[in-house]
Amino acid sequence: MTVEVLGDRWSLVVLRDITFGGHRRFRELLRHSAEGIASNVLADRLKRMSAVGLLSRHGDPGHRQRVDYRLTEAAIQLVPVMAHLGAWGSRWLPTSAELAIRAELLADGGPELWSRFMDELRDVHLRGGDSPDDGVLAELTAAHERVASARR
Amino acid sequence: MTVEVLGDRWSLVVLRDITFGGHRRFRELLRHSAEGIASNVLADRLKRMSAVGLLSRHGDPGHRQRVDYRLTEAAIQLVPVMAHLGAWGSRWLPTSAELAIRAELLADGGPELWSRFMDELRDVHLRGGDSPDDGVLAELTAAHERVASARR
Repeated sequence: MTVEVLGDRWSLVVLRDITFGGHRRFRELLRHSAEGIASNVLADRLKRMSAVGLLSRHGDPGHRQRVDYRLTEAAIQLVPVMAHLGAWGSRWLPTSAELAIRAELLADGGPELWSRFMDELRDVHLRGGDSPDDGVLAELTAAHERVASARR
Repeated sequence: MTVEVLGDRWSLVVLRDITFGGHRRFRELLRHSAEGIASNVLADRLKRMSAVGLLSRHGDPGHRQRVDYRLTEAAIQLVPVMAHLGAWGSRWLPTSAELAIRAELLADGGPELWSRFMDELRDVHLRGGDSPDDGVLAELTAAHERVASARR
């Protein structure tokens, strides 16, 4: 059943971009997709994940461009799953340092870091607050940019 | 990349059946599939997972029926991922007690249980030994059968 809900190539990728990229709108998700998701696929996955309760929609539903997609508590609780998946992938699959760094930091941080990160996501996605400048997401993003700029 | 390798509905289901069901041959996997996998899909996924190094093939490659599929070290290290996925699914998705019991026991056992289970899988899949009568797999299987027979 879990595989039925999560098990297609794109749902987890979109969820990752919302969780770690901080993107919450259709256009941002489309523009920042590292894998170059097609716009019809993105629209379909956002709709599907909203229907199963992984995302909630906020804003003007008549204007697709203005809808804000936020993680639900169910989606936030996927952080440990994503941490394990990322750690496994960076150990066993060919990947770039740029893509692996966040996965490695998250894996190394263990349950304590995941739980801090989940609290931060709850503030932002469930209560509409802002991501703190010194939080876990800021730390992961900074590490990711350090590696990315070192490669340029 | 991880999603690319694992992210289709059937690969993780087949991997689960090999890991928890103890089935290692084409016919057994086909017969015991709770989701009723089609034989061409099963053949394709076994081939694909062998190619990416999640399964190794033993026995007579000329006779598909006699080939034994075994987990590799990479696949065995997916146990914590499967434990988290299962725990998440049994919390957030509608499921039956029969399907959830193993996921719950595995999640409750935590890293200590996962590591014992992984050692057991290494004995069986990497070294060709037998599954111990008092091991983790035997315990999970017994719990699964208790719940299944209570429902009959």
